[in-house]
Amino acid sequence: MSHEPLLLGIDAGGTSTRAVLTDATGRCFGYGVGGRGNPISAGPERAADGVLDAIAAALRPAGRTLADVHTVAPAMAGSRASVDDSWLRARLEAEGFTGRLVFESDLLATYFSGSAAPSGYALVSGTGACVIRVRDGLIEGTGDGLGWLLGDRGSGFWIGQRVVQAVAADLDGTGPTTAMTDPVLAHYGLQRREAVRQGRPEVLEDLVSAIYSRPPIEAAALAPFAFVESDAVDADAVAHGILTSAGEHLADTLAAVLAGPGPLVIGGSVLARPGIVRDAFLARLGGAADGLEMRTVADGAIGAAFLAVRAAGGEPDEATLTALTDTVVRFR
Amino acid sequence: MSHEPLLLGIDAGGTSTRAVLTDATGRCFGYGVGGRGNPISAGPERAADGVLDAIAAALRPAGRTLADVHTVAPAMAGSRASVDDSWLRARLEAEGFTGRLVFESDLLATYFSGSAAPSGYALVSGTGACVIRVRDGLIEGTGDGLGWLLGDRGSGFWIGQRVVQAVAADLDGTGPTTAMTDPVLAHYGLQRREAVRQGRPEVLEDLVSAIYSRPPIEAAALAPFAFVESDAVDADAVAHGILTSAGEHLADTLAAVLAGPGPLVIGGSVLARPGIVRDAFLARLGGAADGLEMRTVADGAIGAAFLAVRAAGGEPDEATLTALTDTVVRFR
Repeated sequence: MSHEPLLLGIDAGGTSTRAVLTDATGRCFGYGVGGRGNPISAGPERAADGVLDAIAAALRPAGRTLADVHTVAPAMAGSRASVDDSWLRARLEAEGFTGRLVFESDLLATYFSGSAAPSGYALVSGTGACVIRVRDGLIEGTGDGLGWLLGDRGSGFWIGQRVVQAVAADLDGTGPTTAMTDPVLAHYGLQRREAVRQGRPEVLEDLVSAIYSRPPIEAAALAPFAFVESDAVDADAVAHGILTSAGEHLADTLAAVLAGPGPLVIGGSVLARPGIVRDAFLARLGGAADGLEMRTVADGAIGAAFLAVRAAGGEPDEATLTALTDTVVRFR
Repeated sequence: MSHEPLLLGIDAGGTSTRAVLTDATGRCFGYGVGGRGNPISAGPERAADGVLDAIAAALRPAGRTLADVHTVAPAMAGSRASVDDSWLRARLEAEGFTGRLVFESDLLATYFSGSAAPSGYALVSGTGACVIRVRDGLIEGTGDGLGWLLGDRGSGFWIGQRVVQAVAADLDGTGPTTAMTDPVLAHYGLQRREAVRQGRPEVLEDLVSAIYSRPPIEAAALAPFAFVESDAVDADAVAHGILTSAGEHLADTLAAVLAGPGPLVIGGSVLARPGIVRDAFLARLGGAADGLEMRTVADGAIGAAFLAVRAAGGEPDEATLTALTDTVVRFR
């Protein structure tokens, strides 16, 4: 191992956290996964647990401790996590950390997971949906990312909500039948039955009760049913329509911040694979897609390490990204 | 006061509760208001408090107690409140009640607040939105009423959510400017300012934070801004569009359960007054509106009393409704 300063890039998400131990050249010495890492959604204590677990796992193969680390760069959603960083700093210091703690944007980490170019775009559509325009390594423009109540159009939540609305309309007879109905009912432990109450199938009332007894955001768990049923041999028209609409919304969100050609890094599961969403996305973009070099990334871990190099005073470039990409795989 | 059995009709809502003390002829002897009365949304203890407070106030002018009451008929949303009625029965019995407790639908109470005809329609658009088709005094068909996550199209929540989405689009430059922006910001204690972060006005981030720090349903509180700005001398086109769309959705919900002419009783504030929503509603219904005799009601209190008479074995009719309407006003 080099004697260069060690750096930790952290991709701290709402459901899990990834840590990459690297040096300034992008050589990876360890990789670790932890639980929920966002203090706004998970609470500060639980989020710190998630980040510290990921760090411990990343340090282990190198036989190092936090006392040996020069810079920790956690990339996460929401700027408020960094306004008061004591929720994480105190825990790091308790493990011997005396270096620099520099918060970064999770969207920027997604971007630099797929591109080292100083300017371009990142589009993430997972549970939520957001686009950024990057210029000179910083976020210059933001599209959507307004959360499930105000926006996140084309996100997993957006799709999931439309799935359950379509199922409700099918059961109620106010919309077309859809192959998603039975699997969605089964997801909630329900099945179709004949009983009707006040002109409405009782199973619809049960579905409504099931939906409202859970946090609203859990509707995102229904998005996969749209993908499964639209991919089926006898493709479901309702599912197809929802996914087409999602792709168009994501294109519109990108178009709102588009200013010339550049790499387009895509994160999140909705646009990850070729298929209906991607087709609709490209069709809606039309000629605007020509100058975009699309590449997908699994998460923001590599970009977080890239940002850690930058935060430590380095000037990461294409070679750094290649080194990170090539060496992280040994530990994943 | 007559020596006929005394009956209590209760209109138990999500924000307040009304009780009407009557006899079988529809003569009102008292009227009272209490707090939240729905055990699903308010919790059983608080809901029982709301109902008991309303009952106490209704009994007071007559100098009676619950021991003198033959039948209590609470009308409320959700059928589960009546499956296990112990949350209310125990509290009533503690006050000396030995009569019958018969749960009714709040939508049916709205209907019979405006019509004594055995068949017709009720449409309620308040925080939520629902339509029922009544036949022979019972609910035969139900439209929407699926809650804010799945439906309630054209409701106060539906309008309020679109108001804040329009304000976000205005601030973000992705939608037209709207006169609603400044008053909505002021509603959250915010005001427009120049500061921009990552290509987005900081005040938009503040608005997003304000929205997500409150229960989602509170977006319904923004609906009045659409009415105010569309009624202004320089009518706001965005507000006008939202209200037009709300009226059309309510018409579609009614159309889905429409089966011939009949009285249409309208409850809730969204369709209460003549204006844009009502105009769009009637335009969308077109010829289907011809056979509907529209009348608005303030709440379901009179209908709950009407249902109490029926629950006690009576056969309430037009005369009963007229008596209730004429005598309740003395106590309101």
